[in-house]
Amino acid sequence: MFQVNDHFGRLQGSYLFSEIARRVNEYTGENPDREIIRLGIGDVTRPLAPAVLQAIDKATQEMADEKTFMGYGPEQGYEFLRAAIREGDYAARGVDIGLDEIFVSDGSKCDTGNIQELLSPDCKIGVTNPVYPVYVDTNVMAGRSGEFDAQTGQFSEITYIPTTAENDFVPALPQRRVDVMYLCSPNNPTGTAMTKDQLKVWVDWANETGALILFDGAYERFITDGDVPHSIYEIEGAKTCAIEFRSFSKTAGFTGTRCAYTVVPKELMGQDSKGNKVSMNALWLRRHTTKFNGVSYIVQRGAAAIYTAEGKKQVEQNIEAYLANARMILDGLREIGITAYGGVNSPYVWLKTPDGMASWDFFDKLLKEANVVGTPGSGFGSAGEGYFRLTAFNTKENTEKAISRLANLK
Amino acid sequence: MFQVNDHFGRLQGSYLFSEIARRVNEYTGENPDREIIRLGIGDVTRPLAPAVLQAIDKATQEMADEKTFMGYGPEQGYEFLRAAIREGDYAARGVDIGLDEIFVSDGSKCDTGNIQELLSPDCKIGVTNPVYPVYVDTNVMAGRSGEFDAQTGQFSEITYIPTTAENDFVPALPQRRVDVMYLCSPNNPTGTAMTKDQLKVWVDWANETGALILFDGAYERFITDGDVPHSIYEIEGAKTCAIEFRSFSKTAGFTGTRCAYTVVPKELMGQDSKGNKVSMNALWLRRHTTKFNGVSYIVQRGAAAIYTAEGKKQVEQNIEAYLANARMILDGLREIGITAYGGVNSPYVWLKTPDGMASWDFFDKLLKEANVVGTPGSGFGSAGEGYFRLTAFNTKENTEKAISRLANLK
Repeated sequence: MFQVNDHFGRLQGSYLFSEIARRVNEYTGENPDREIIRLGIGDVTRPLAPAVLQAIDKATQEMADEKTFMGYGPEQGYEFLRAAIREGDYAARGVDIGLDEIFVSDGSKCDTGNIQELLSPDCKIGVTNPVYPVYVDTNVMAGRSGEFDAQTGQFSEITYIPTTAENDFVPALPQRRVDVMYLCSPNNPTGTAMTKDQLKVWVDWANETGALILFDGAYERFITDGDVPHSIYEIEGAKTCAIEFRSFSKTAGFTGTRCAYTVVPKELMGQDSKGNKVSMNALWLRRHTTKFNGVSYIVQRGAAAIYTAEGKKQVEQNIEAYLANARMILDGLREIGITAYGGVNSPYVWLKTPDGMASWDFFDKLLKEANVVGTPGSGFGSAGEGYFRLTAFNTKENTEKAISRLANLK
Repeated sequence: MFQVNDHFGRLQGSYLFSEIARRVNEYTGENPDREIIRLGIGDVTRPLAPAVLQAIDKATQEMADEKTFMGYGPEQGYEFLRAAIREGDYAARGVDIGLDEIFVSDGSKCDTGNIQELLSPDCKIGVTNPVYPVYVDTNVMAGRSGEFDAQTGQFSEITYIPTTAENDFVPALPQRRVDVMYLCSPNNPTGTAMTKDQLKVWVDWANETGALILFDGAYERFITDGDVPHSIYEIEGAKTCAIEFRSFSKTAGFTGTRCAYTVVPKELMGQDSKGNKVSMNALWLRRHTTKFNGVSYIVQRGAAAIYTAEGKKQVEQNIEAYLANARMILDGLREIGITAYGGVNSPYVWLKTPDGMASWDFFDKLLKEANVVGTPGSGFGSAGEGYFRLTAFNTKENTEKAISRLANLK
């Protein structure tokens, strides 16, 4: 009988969000009259910007007419969108990225997983702890994890670098060999962001050791601090060591519309087993054109509208509304004596549970006593234990209500 | 320095369509007044059906309002679409497929590539010859190909099964071990289709030998013959040995809109290296939810509209128009004494070049003497040499004109 990929057998159950749903359902089953406020999910709630909707409408009309109908497009994305990205996200910040270094896709989740196909199975992976679980799970599938240790909750071949209040959420350089390091800034789940100086340390390390940085900038649009880079390519030397993942999901409310992009600089080289230099841009182009068929034309038109003057303003209004919620949560928590992080360059607030309470215990307390749902930090890794994530993606009214309920917690 | 995936180094250049473009450009450069008719590309040209456009419009409006806005959807696809697929494509043909056996995606090209992540790198692959190049290239990337032999144009570890006029385009069972067999019916590029009896031979073989069939049914909607199955699951025993890929690209003109689906039956088991049975449905669910984030909501609404009474009728009209073109090409070729196949259950006509001319020579002759562009059969594999593909995706007028030009060929 045909053999399956054994590595899937090493995957640990992803119980975080299903366990949350189970506990919430159990509680609401017993208390059907309670109004639950959800600050747990990392999903946007505000409608698409009018400029985006208009662009989608116009593109849909084009699909109605033989003369303007669009069939297969370039797998890398239409030039109108790549040019808008190049100009709006890079040139505008003084970063020169070529059109053929930008690859439009349907999501950063896909891209951060698929990019691994370009890498040897022997590459040693590094992640921060806590971490977006997809980085780990996809490397488990690819056979890079080693064995799982139930005691530590970690895989033997993956290097986990703690980012906690103790180190001000700045990951220290690894103490053992890491070939490929995932960095996410502004960070999911902690909501904290690396400054240019902090990121420079990593870029220098990567260039010195020959490592690759996979830089996830999905939350870039939430950055408000001037010393936080919007792109890793603002850091000198990044083009020879980093791939950047960007998404319209949180930026422009595209979680259900699906569009993202990845930048692979032409300067970026890996090496094959014979020691020959290999262009990562060429490999990704080949992968992208062979295993992907481009993003829906109408969606790409919608995404390009984000870069118009009108679209930009509308998108910023949404971001500001979320950031105002984050500020409200942050202030509310601090007023009641809870230590909290993030929320300034991010829609996520990462709080320290009171009295060192375990993350899941705090989850239960919040659910039962305040009818507020958040996400236990321990669900993102061992160093998330004792932390808890609240998100700014609910309405202003519900966020206010949730905070006032928290204030009344015993 | 970090190591790349060495297998990419074995990929052969994909020169087919770029070489076609080069020759066409050279010719039109020298003969700028000639009107070229393109029957080469496998891409639709007729606009989206009005029912699809209406559904997309309605969904876009929903995205404009906080109350109806859609964020992340289920990675497997919305139930409204999966239920429509289940009913329209399976139950209506007496095939019982569960909702949780259907996985909506953005394309069959992606799915036929990504499905390999579920398989051991040691699986032996079989393809027909000629073949859609993506099946081969993606297995090269995954390390299943062995070495390339420039003499034969084949990889050592891949089994190529000829499908030519000599065997009536019905692939014979493999003579050496094949764990995973790609079958595409109606076939790209030959335009021929397997009957139920012919496909049954393969299903029985797979169940007997423990092989997996990856069944690509992207051209299903073009089937007109009653004895050609629309789904491999119409064949008894297929659920324990086959995964089926279906697409809205050619069916409903979605090549630029992007939506497809894959069926992985719960009965289908592989085995791990210890000999334990492993559910392929469970593996694909895990892969799909971990590395993919679903298809755009508005696109899924558009796809679901294909299954309404109105949408179905509109889509059928498009298919009939393409099939009428195919019939015209087929009749035209036969009238001038050229042997041609396909075109009855397919938008592709596969012709035998006159006097055993090489595929590329016939390409040049057609280009220069008739100003018609087609695709050389040898571009799809060694057994395609001496064949040539014409597609039915141009307008009726252009197709008529192309055929009358062919009739005047010397």
